[in-house]
Amino acid sequence: MQFINIANEGVKNLSPYQAGKPIEELERELGISNIIKLASNENPFGFPESAKQAIQAQLADLTRYPDANGYYLKDVIAKKFGVELNQITLGNGSNDLLELIAHTFATEQDEIIFSQYAFIVYPLVAQAINARSVVIPAKNYGHDLDAFVAVITPKTKLIYVANPNNPTGTFLTHQQIAEFLAKVPENVIVVLDEAYTEFTHPDERVDSFKLLQQHSNLVICRTLSKAYGLAGLRIGYAVSNNEIADLFNRVRQPFNCNSLALAAAIAVMQDDAFVAQVAENNRIEMARYEQFFEKNGLEYIRSKGNFITVDLKQPAAPIYEKLLHQGVIVRPIAGYGMPNHLRISIGLPEENDRFFDALLKVLN
Amino acid sequence: MQFINIANEGVKNLSPYQAGKPIEELERELGISNIIKLASNENPFGFPESAKQAIQAQLADLTRYPDANGYYLKDVIAKKFGVELNQITLGNGSNDLLELIAHTFATEQDEIIFSQYAFIVYPLVAQAINARSVVIPAKNYGHDLDAFVAVITPKTKLIYVANPNNPTGTFLTHQQIAEFLAKVPENVIVVLDEAYTEFTHPDERVDSFKLLQQHSNLVICRTLSKAYGLAGLRIGYAVSNNEIADLFNRVRQPFNCNSLALAAAIAVMQDDAFVAQVAENNRIEMARYEQFFEKNGLEYIRSKGNFITVDLKQPAAPIYEKLLHQGVIVRPIAGYGMPNHLRISIGLPEENDRFFDALLKVLN
Repeated sequence: MQFINIANEGVKNLSPYQAGKPIEELERELGISNIIKLASNENPFGFPESAKQAIQAQLADLTRYPDANGYYLKDVIAKKFGVELNQITLGNGSNDLLELIAHTFATEQDEIIFSQYAFIVYPLVAQAINARSVVIPAKNYGHDLDAFVAVITPKTKLIYVANPNNPTGTFLTHQQIAEFLAKVPENVIVVLDEAYTEFTHPDERVDSFKLLQQHSNLVICRTLSKAYGLAGLRIGYAVSNNEIADLFNRVRQPFNCNSLALAAAIAVMQDDAFVAQVAENNRIEMARYEQFFEKNGLEYIRSKGNFITVDLKQPAAPIYEKLLHQGVIVRPIAGYGMPNHLRISIGLPEENDRFFDALLKVLN
Repeated sequence: MQFINIANEGVKNLSPYQAGKPIEELERELGISNIIKLASNENPFGFPESAKQAIQAQLADLTRYPDANGYYLKDVIAKKFGVELNQITLGNGSNDLLELIAHTFATEQDEIIFSQYAFIVYPLVAQAINARSVVIPAKNYGHDLDAFVAVITPKTKLIYVANPNNPTGTFLTHQQIAEFLAKVPENVIVVLDEAYTEFTHPDERVDSFKLLQQHSNLVICRTLSKAYGLAGLRIGYAVSNNEIADLFNRVRQPFNCNSLALAAAIAVMQDDAFVAQVAENNRIEMARYEQFFEKNGLEYIRSKGNFITVDLKQPAAPIYEKLLHQGVIVRPIAGYGMPNHLRISIGLPEENDRFFDALLKVLN
């Protein structure tokens, strides 16, 4: 019996997501220490103190199931963004939400649109349910929204837009997204994946909640894994029209969010000072990366995320391997169809110095 | 635009899972304190000390993504049960696994078999993907496995068997399950949901890992939310043929298990003393429940779980409400088609005394 023969069609051609290499794994493999990881767009400031305290207060109750409704976290989110509680869906990270949206709306009869070089979870989710993926060629590594509109058909159910995009860091302005939404029929769900929005400057940040007031087919996805520093705990949220949120909450696993993630998220979403510090470091260090690449004649993609992608003009895999031996973990993105690029997460100043030194050593 | 009209067929008729009422919610609603919750088959001994220590050691790393492979936890599970790492799939609670299995194997063209009065997540999962649910009438509130075999068709993809069953506590012996498996074709996946197996006496416990050696279509599902006391953290595991595990791991969200759940699970799965204490309390207190019900002329279903279900011979909802006002939360199971029953989770001796007193007060 070959069990793959009785698996769902989409599953047969599904390759699992390739995660960034964990520090402990590199320690095990190479027997080296003093490793830095700039591979998974994690927060270099460590776990926020406010979240740590919230977790400690919650430890006694871990034998109980989490609050299936996530009432207190939804209350914080609702107040922060001026939305209603019944517009919010909580997820086990935003990956859980991106998948939940597809399970709610898309079947193998439907089409899902996303960009070349966009977040790899979109094609994985579409593949798993055997929906038809409509991949729009990137324009300057970013989303070509006019081309998105041009391929909408009666079978189009979902459009994923990542802004800023991962792994390229490209950015669409409020105006560009507003114009795009005006052209998308209301019966097509547009998922605006804003995992990295907190890293954009407040002056240029897309006001997605304003767009939501005008477009009931918009779903905003956010994560607390990046600027908020809770990647290990798994928590994200979607904000949408309340009717859509009701559908998501039917499909959602009732205890998809664990108690400590809920507690930590409540604390850190009110900890504006932490996020401001994180974003400020990112702005300063991003400028250093740009200078470093320019000074050394390396082409990079201008990024609004907490990472930057460099074009080595040669296969990146051997460079990646050599960096590992220097104790520096970055991210090869051949899986995104970018075999000559490496993506580097912006770290603390001393981590970035380590990367600069290691890359020069490896390239020379 | 009515968004329900563009949702997937199954989602249109899906009602969300009804969780047990949280203690804080009852506090808010009734303004009472000193509440006991015997509603969600949680562990009355509180969060294990071994897990607490493991969590503390992990706090610094929460900014990093969890280990997507769960290597160290799989290693503990593999050694404990004498299986290979590549046979194991980790889940965000066993709910995540029960859903993952369906997403891997079942579509709206397929049939899924389960018992009347079995765990409600089975019909919810089948409904969400719009597969056909084949519900086998219960025999003495338990699984009628001969009737399961009789309805298998070429469209049958999955069979869910809960043992012990929730919410009834009924139990199938090793022999009964072995005979059943011998009659199921290999191209039908049998999910043996053993969420409560740790509460059965070692002498009568089903040796499901032995059955797995003989039946490659068997998937064993376990949770750490019950005997192991980690409900708030969300962690469970499935053990299967490695080819099936490979399929599950393609569909699984890469970071479905959070870092603290992984750390706590590693600790508590090696903490045999904790689980032994929990099971011993359950045995002693279960006997007290049986005596209490018999003494007071109340009919109950004999249970091998950490809960017991009583037939009040009258609508249970008003009794449930009155118990709430006594500060005692139990579980109405009208949603299971058992409107006259209440399910009570076995608590600590003093919690069970509280229930006994409250029920007598309410019934008289």
